[in-house]
Amino acid sequence: MPAPVDHNRRRQEIAEIAWDIISQVGLDAVTIREIAAAAGYSTTIVTHYFASKRELLLYTYQAAAAHAQKRVDQVLAHDAGDLQGYLEALLPLDQNGVRDWRVYFAFWQIAALDADFAAEQRSWMARVRQVIAGILKARAKSDQALRNCDFALLAKRLLTLLQGMAVQAVFDPEEWSAQRQKNFLASEVRSLLATAAVRKR
Amino acid sequence: MPAPVDHNRRRQEIAEIAWDIISQVGLDAVTIREIAAAAGYSTTIVTHYFASKRELLLYTYQAAAAHAQKRVDQVLAHDAGDLQGYLEALLPLDQNGVRDWRVYFAFWQIAALDADFAAEQRSWMARVRQVIAGILKARAKSDQALRNCDFALLAKRLLTLLQGMAVQAVFDPEEWSAQRQKNFLASEVRSLLATAAVRKR
Repeated sequence: MPAPVDHNRRRQEIAEIAWDIISQVGLDAVTIREIAAAAGYSTTIVTHYFASKRELLLYTYQAAAAHAQKRVDQVLAHDAGDLQGYLEALLPLDQNGVRDWRVYFAFWQIAALDADFAAEQRSWMARVRQVIAGILKARAKSDQALRNCDFALLAKRLLTLLQGMAVQAVFDPEEWSAQRQKNFLASEVRSLLATAAVRKR
Repeated sequence: MPAPVDHNRRRQEIAEIAWDIISQVGLDAVTIREIAAAAGYSTTIVTHYFASKRELLLYTYQAAAAHAQKRVDQVLAHDAGDLQGYLEALLPLDQNGVRDWRVYFAFWQIAALDADFAAEQRSWMARVRQVIAGILKARAKSDQALRNCDFALLAKRLLTLLQGMAVQAVFDPEEWSAQRQKNFLASEVRSLLATAAVRKR
């Protein structure tokens, strides 16, 4: 008897290949046929899992986000209050990070026009803000100045910083080398935490 | 004798129609044929001006940036030190602003993969930073605290704020109503100017 097909694993595998191809050639140029060829499957099998490019991109975006999440989990398992490490894990510091952001850009173009994709993007942003707020609460235990800060607002300000940096860094890797991203981030996080402590609720 | 054809005006006219269509359906779905139909030209005439979607998007992006520039010029003609007004003119506060950002997202997807587009994007970012630095210099004349600030660094921080806000606001118009964008912006600009005054060069 042949081993049963693990459909989730296949979807995941195809999504990872799609993620790689989309990050290289963009969404416009990618075809289901090309993804099938790279995965070693027939086009029929791939369309069994993904009926359209739209569906494929949605899943691929989730795979890219899950991929970034793995890096994040490692950081926070080590130190639940490591704000700098968490934000670094999401920035385009290396080739993997740049690839994630390329997939995000492909996704954003659709999300600007498609309510389902926009909802997915909002839930990504909400998740990041929630994790940041959790990190801030962990830090507040040992940092008196952070107590009574508006964590939700501070998380929003930090997400704004993260996204603003990333969209510059992807297009200008010289101006935004990994080291410069880290330095800029550290300096801005310091400022944001200091002004949040002053503002308080 | 028929009036001579104004080629620049035609290109501009076609680009504005393309800008409108791309902001509605995305780059993937738009066709030269559709743009030609909307402009009232034959496909042959449009392909005479734009040999490919790539070329069309590059020009459309420049048209969207020029469109935003007009709003900006009006603000700065009125008050050369109006930092809040300048940044508001670039944010997706209204339908026009959202349309500009949708074209930017379409452009970014290509810019993440195409060196010419990335260079164009870098020059857009450099222009914005330059205008911001000019505004800061104008303000420094009457604001002692800003003197000797690192204007280039502060401009970079403000561009990061602008881009970080815009990419959230487009997808989450409820959380980021025009009024909330303005309030958040005002509060962040205040913090950034204050910390810049403290840091100095």
